[in-house]
Amino acid sequence: MDPYQKLVERFQEVQLLRSTSAILEWDQETYLPRKAVSYRANQLSYLAGKAHILTTAPEVGEWITTSEQKGYPAESDEAPNLFHWRRDYDRATKLPVSFVEEFERSAAHAREAWKEARERSEFSIFKSHLQKMVDLNKQKADLFGYQASPYDALLDQFEPGATVNTIRPVFADLKSALVDLVQAIASGSSDTEPLAGHYPVAQQQSFNQVIAAALGYDFDAGRIDTTTHPFASTLGPDDQRITTRYDEKLFQMSLYGIMHETGHALYEQGLRKEAFGTPLGNAASLGLHESQSRLWENHVGRSAAFWEKWYPEAAQFLTDLKRFDPSTIVRGVQQVRPSFIRVEADEVTYDLHILLRFEIEVGLLEGSVAVADLPAIWNERFLQLFGLKVPNDQLGVLQDIHWSIGALGYFPTYSLGNLNAAQLMNSASADIAGLNDALTRGEYRPLLDWLREKIHRHGQRYLPNDLMARATGESTSAKYRIAYLQQKYLQRV
Amino acid sequence: MDPYQKLVERFQEVQLLRSTSAILEWDQETYLPRKAVSYRANQLSYLAGKAHILTTAPEVGEWITTSEQKGYPAESDEAPNLFHWRRDYDRATKLPVSFVEEFERSAAHAREAWKEARERSEFSIFKSHLQKMVDLNKQKADLFGYQASPYDALLDQFEPGATVNTIRPVFADLKSALVDLVQAIASGSSDTEPLAGHYPVAQQQSFNQVIAAALGYDFDAGRIDTTTHPFASTLGPDDQRITTRYDEKLFQMSLYGIMHETGHALYEQGLRKEAFGTPLGNAASLGLHESQSRLWENHVGRSAAFWEKWYPEAAQFLTDLKRFDPSTIVRGVQQVRPSFIRVEADEVTYDLHILLRFEIEVGLLEGSVAVADLPAIWNERFLQLFGLKVPNDQLGVLQDIHWSIGALGYFPTYSLGNLNAAQLMNSASADIAGLNDALTRGEYRPLLDWLREKIHRHGQRYLPNDLMARATGESTSAKYRIAYLQQKYLQRV
Repeated sequence: MDPYQKLVERFQEVQLLRSTSAILEWDQETYLPRKAVSYRANQLSYLAGKAHILTTAPEVGEWITTSEQKGYPAESDEAPNLFHWRRDYDRATKLPVSFVEEFERSAAHAREAWKEARERSEFSIFKSHLQKMVDLNKQKADLFGYQASPYDALLDQFEPGATVNTIRPVFADLKSALVDLVQAIASGSSDTEPLAGHYPVAQQQSFNQVIAAALGYDFDAGRIDTTTHPFASTLGPDDQRITTRYDEKLFQMSLYGIMHETGHALYEQGLRKEAFGTPLGNAASLGLHESQSRLWENHVGRSAAFWEKWYPEAAQFLTDLKRFDPSTIVRGVQQVRPSFIRVEADEVTYDLHILLRFEIEVGLLEGSVAVADLPAIWNERFLQLFGLKVPNDQLGVLQDIHWSIGALGYFPTYSLGNLNAAQLMNSASADIAGLNDALTRGEYRPLLDWLREKIHRHGQRYLPNDLMARATGESTSAKYRIAYLQQKYLQRV
Repeated sequence: MDPYQKLVERFQEVQLLRSTSAILEWDQETYLPRKAVSYRANQLSYLAGKAHILTTAPEVGEWITTSEQKGYPAESDEAPNLFHWRRDYDRATKLPVSFVEEFERSAAHAREAWKEARERSEFSIFKSHLQKMVDLNKQKADLFGYQASPYDALLDQFEPGATVNTIRPVFADLKSALVDLVQAIASGSSDTEPLAGHYPVAQQQSFNQVIAAALGYDFDAGRIDTTTHPFASTLGPDDQRITTRYDEKLFQMSLYGIMHETGHALYEQGLRKEAFGTPLGNAASLGLHESQSRLWENHVGRSAAFWEKWYPEAAQFLTDLKRFDPSTIVRGVQQVRPSFIRVEADEVTYDLHILLRFEIEVGLLEGSVAVADLPAIWNERFLQLFGLKVPNDQLGVLQDIHWSIGALGYFPTYSLGNLNAAQLMNSASADIAGLNDALTRGEYRPLLDWLREKIHRHGQRYLPNDLMARATGESTSAKYRIAYLQQKYLQRV
């Protein structure tokens, strides 16, 4: 058999294992009984070990080398698949099986410790587990190798090609613009009450389903469940599930949560199914993935156009919305107010949360920040950025799951997603005649089709910055997001 | 490493795969999106193939042989584990791969044909497929080997050690007593209306949870979900999930369904966790498993004592129950009425359904019953046993899935379960002072502890009949069930 075909079959087998792990992880977040966590960690560790063995076997390296020598043209399917297989193989063969298994096992335990620590707002419960995950990530960076910063080795896992040196200046542009913008908004706006009311969970669920379906989410290939930490997950080529959480006083939490996760799922549902298991069937990067979630959540959802279309139907499900006129609701969902919790942040202050974490992560990896000092460092920098004093660690350093599962290097992709979303919407508006009118009528298909054409269908054919350049004419920049936020929030004041 | 220890580790690895398959199957029954079925089949087939390779590898046979030569004492943990590993290994390696594949392929076709045949109530659609499954089961029996009857080889898969010659006289005792009993009940009882009312699903769920917890089900190691076909499944040593289905006009369906599945789950939760993955961590047989579900469902649940205790609380959840006094409810849940469908049968007539199937299955295997004659034979014998004329094959010979998937030899375990349940309750009543008073007070711990001591903790240490003899002083007999039914249903009339 042709070595390239052997690679395809091998990675389809690996995908059977990985998608099975995704099912086990989905179950762990949604329905797993408390006492079953420990054995679940064994199951996940076993599957991860098997996948690692299959992807790092010597014959895989040989098949890649032999295939590379065939000189597939750049525009073929083979070339980008081989590029990513080579990249992944070289990196994966640098991790011993024992390291991968220890990482998975430690992460499963750390996640449980984090849950308890957050619940009780006690950093000490989590501290040793976090130290372990930081140490393991340092080891990982050393095993991968890097040029300028160990952080680059981690970041590159989630955002191929990105480095501290390339994103720091982009983030610096963003930071100074945001600090100014937050001040301008704070001085100009009167603090409005949130959209107070009682919004029963079942009614929120019904309305959220209507919206997810309207955006184009295929419920025959997915479903919505409830979890503490919302996520989107792909369990098979036709199984893209999303989750959210509910607050009966705050319908926005689940509605915009669902629009966000629907954005992720639409990307996955737009990938080529026949390429499932190969790089061409994968999303380009987390920063691209996040661009899709942010685009649907913020650019589409937190807009006057959205409420112009959906107000009547929303008020049928969420009857307490009848207390407000559409413009009040728009002001409510666009409210800007510095706050403690990243996932509840408005879209203006959101990136400040990320910039805080990015600098801390770089410090943890480069050795300038110690785990033991984290609560103090967090609280001090939070005060500088937001002008708020963090009252406890539950509202501070313990709020996010990421470090507990060892995902250092992940946070920057959220802000890259925001930047990409604004940049993509800017181009989509230029490319699609009457886009704003379509959105005001609740017609999302033209925008989804444009995204599928420009982004989804390509999978990992191009590196993220190249894909952005093909779609929008330039690599990821802060200027479209700054312009978007200034226009949306300063014109409003 | 010691070969016995190698076996332990091998079968713990196999258990990681099988428990993972159990998660995927649970998800398929509960939450899987429609379009995801096809890829899920790939995932399950992959995991099953891996488990098969690991259990039938030549080194496993060598490790078993070497370990056997060590002469572990009968009372050790090693001896019963080796007995079952040998038994399973020999049987698994007796079936050529080509036979297994033909069996699975034929079963897949037969199941589809059966579905259509049942839907259209046309036996002719199913006939040739059933003939094929009977022929393949005859071949299987020949490959396994047997002494008296080919049926023994099939039965032994589900009930180790059971044979036609041992269970036929037991079933004969049961049959004559049941036929008399059904006639006596029919002549003495007035036909009561079912317990008509509206019982909202959410309220049924709340009450069912109270009952499952009261019986001793550990919700920290399990959960209840909704499926078309109720089941209990073990997804890990601390993860025994159950499912049920709801009818808002008929609270009994979910309540007794939950008590039944809780019985299965209590057995699994009572197995030795450190033996998970080895025979000592498995239930003894299907007939023992079914004894636990029937005991909690019927002996505990369908009793006056149960309703004396739970009526006030049940009526708070299921408010329409206030229309009936407790004795009416007891008569309602103990109603006896011969009917066509096995899974809807009351506990008196239930075993008649099984005895009918058992004799037909033995006849099919031994050659005294021809597939072509099945509808006529079924209907004739049904008339003799139940006094009812079967109006069509959908309500007769086509009602069960078992034959279509080739599971001949499975049905007797349902009646063995009923016999074992009565026999165990008889001994428990003798062993536990004041058991009836405790049950009337809703104190189930003494009974559960007795079952854990006598049955659960032993896993597969003893063959089913030996385990019953150790627990009750004799092997499985019909007399305790006959006495139980006579006392329960004739004294009532």
